[in-house]
Amino acid sequence: MSTPSGPDYARLFRKGVPDAAPRFTGFPKYNFIGGHNDPTRIPVEALADCAAAALRREGSLLALYNLGHGPLGHRGLRDLVVDKLKRHRGVTVTREEVLLTSGSLQGLDLVNSLLLERGDTVLVEELSYGGSISRLRTLGVNIVPMPLDAEGIRIDALSDALDALKAKGVTPKYLYTIPTIQNPTGSILPLERREQLLKLARAHGVPVFEDECYADLVWAGMAAPPALYAMAPAQVIHIGSFSKTLAPALRSAYAVAPWPVLSRLVALKTDAGSASVEQMLVAEYFSKNFDSHVERLSSVLKEKLDVMVEAVAREFGSAAECFVPKGGIFLWVRLPPEVDVRKLVKPAADAGIAFNPGPEWAVEPETATSQLRLCFALPSKEEIREGVAAFARVCFEQTGIPAQSGNIRHAAG
Amino acid sequence: MSTPSGPDYARLFRKGVPDAAPRFTGFPKYNFIGGHNDPTRIPVEALADCAAAALRREGSLLALYNLGHGPLGHRGLRDLVVDKLKRHRGVTVTREEVLLTSGSLQGLDLVNSLLLERGDTVLVEELSYGGSISRLRTLGVNIVPMPLDAEGIRIDALSDALDALKAKGVTPKYLYTIPTIQNPTGSILPLERREQLLKLARAHGVPVFEDECYADLVWAGMAAPPALYAMAPAQVIHIGSFSKTLAPALRSAYAVAPWPVLSRLVALKTDAGSASVEQMLVAEYFSKNFDSHVERLSSVLKEKLDVMVEAVAREFGSAAECFVPKGGIFLWVRLPPEVDVRKLVKPAADAGIAFNPGPEWAVEPETATSQLRLCFALPSKEEIREGVAAFARVCFEQTGIPAQSGNIRHAAG
Repeated sequence: MSTPSGPDYARLFRKGVPDAAPRFTGFPKYNFIGGHNDPTRIPVEALADCAAAALRREGSLLALYNLGHGPLGHRGLRDLVVDKLKRHRGVTVTREEVLLTSGSLQGLDLVNSLLLERGDTVLVEELSYGGSISRLRTLGVNIVPMPLDAEGIRIDALSDALDALKAKGVTPKYLYTIPTIQNPTGSILPLERREQLLKLARAHGVPVFEDECYADLVWAGMAAPPALYAMAPAQVIHIGSFSKTLAPALRSAYAVAPWPVLSRLVALKTDAGSASVEQMLVAEYFSKNFDSHVERLSSVLKEKLDVMVEAVAREFGSAAECFVPKGGIFLWVRLPPEVDVRKLVKPAADAGIAFNPGPEWAVEPETATSQLRLCFALPSKEEIREGVAAFARVCFEQTGIPAQSGNIRHAAG
Repeated sequence: MSTPSGPDYARLFRKGVPDAAPRFTGFPKYNFIGGHNDPTRIPVEALADCAAAALRREGSLLALYNLGHGPLGHRGLRDLVVDKLKRHRGVTVTREEVLLTSGSLQGLDLVNSLLLERGDTVLVEELSYGGSISRLRTLGVNIVPMPLDAEGIRIDALSDALDALKAKGVTPKYLYTIPTIQNPTGSILPLERREQLLKLARAHGVPVFEDECYADLVWAGMAAPPALYAMAPAQVIHIGSFSKTLAPALRSAYAVAPWPVLSRLVALKTDAGSASVEQMLVAEYFSKNFDSHVERLSSVLKEKLDVMVEAVAREFGSAAECFVPKGGIFLWVRLPPEVDVRKLVKPAADAGIAFNPGPEWAVEPETATSQLRLCFALPSKEEIREGVAAFARVCFEQTGIPAQSGNIRHAAG
């Protein structure tokens, strides 16, 4: 008897199922994508001690879903979120308004599941987090891009867009914004614009969906205004994360909203709870070390950014325009319009380089074909220098740009 | 200025959004619901040591999504799943066919997302896990109940149902079955029925979706046949979990399927990975202790079951029929048809008792109005005795049944 072949799955898959994932073959040598962090900055000894202490103290509670703390999650970590948001983001909430999630991606999914159906309209910064844009595309909603400048979302454009939609009888389901360390441009929205944004949102009855995943990684001496949630809690749904401040393989994040909204997110969160050991661990470690850890991490990240900006300037010269971020882990770069970065993905991968092509970070992909995102947290300074140089070579080979790297004028093909 | 009230969310929520979750007010005194485990059986010291050891060894990898092991998750835990499935369930797979998930609920969601759309048909055991049934209802699929007897799914009925659907031109998207410690009836499907079930599934081109969440908790001396996946890997999608064998607040579970199916589940898993610290911890602890831990736990659970069966017999007498399970953490009980357990939920809650009403565990709720599920892992033996007695009192007060508890004949009202 031959091996049975199984059901005809291709006929059984639902409509619109995504393509099969490729087999994982490891990371590229020069890995400039993803929210990875610096492996040398993981406080391994302290985490080991904290995990052991927390498990000894409350480990028997693992026998209960959510440790018996209820569907919002670990009380200690919610208290930590409350404290951190108060001290760093000006937010006043209780732990009953904090829902712990499995990464901020789950927060995105829950908020989308609460509000969106096919055909709905949302407002999104014209350049935004690729994971958010791809989710909205999958959901079949109409994404209206909001123009950005060096300080973030342009209020005049937001006002015009809201008026135009109102004239058509459309109320957007939300305005999704990353006001503090915008992804990918790295800007911080000034206080006055925050006030104007909220005023417009209120006037039009539009919820603001504030994603503050990078807000704790603002460079030293570069103060950020309070979170939008701090200024108008009734108007805003807020998400944040410990992935970037501690470690992305820890899936510990949170959503903050008034109870009438949060209670629906809880009802939609049908996963029987997020990972409790990780919540215990983050609470234990960060309740003592949040400020000092983030300060040290930010300073290391800032050094890496400086190395990357220098490397891009050296290797690309005037061909590259950098959007130097005010914090975070990524640099947004614009190349001359004749460069289509999508055509560089494959040759760069062949040379061991991964980068985020701009079109994946743009509501209207065609507007960002010469832009790209380079993450600098994971690679060492040496890898940043080598990788950017290697990328410049690939770019030159494919496009003739940059014509000169450092003091060396490239010879054509 | 009065406090702004925020957007009119009631108008903005999508259609069909679930009701708001109630505020969590703690567990009832006699908690007979949910997959909680015995807090005294959590190996707190060993987990603390294992967490510390694993974090010291590989903690720096937390800087990388999925520890750099790729979207299937922690390699060590996948190796452990491979070994455990081989030794205990007769399954031969490689770690490239194992996807680690955030609880088996994520496995359910991923498989549903791969195969189901509104109007599809699935086959489900007539009594089944409430979380699976409620998901299928939400998805708007047509659920055809498969009759059960004391040994599990009835093959004659399965055959008839498949023929009837074929006559209507309907291919079910899957047969969802819990063959080993069926939830809620606690049966183990005999080998011969497994062979017949797979033969029918093959003949009709229907995938089998095998949920083995409780299969590791079979009572000592009560051998279970191999998993369906072991017998026909091409035909079966298999899920299992460490929630029941170690701790439910640990969200560590797995899905097993051939790569053409698994690669789609990976593509649908857009959460950037499950909790890596918990994966490290489960791998570290269970790689040394799986068999001994499960053996000890099963023996404790069996003692609690015996206490519960005794208590039900004592308090309900001939009014209650128990489906004594062959493993696991729950007892299925049938009361006389004149008892509608739905009417007992509120008075029981008022008396500090929570139980699972049968209708929530039934594809056709009206067929199970006098049945209920009682979980025995969490409460102590004393709480089991007291809680069952208290439940019998509530039942008598509401329905006049049981007329006698122990030696005491109840006086009416």
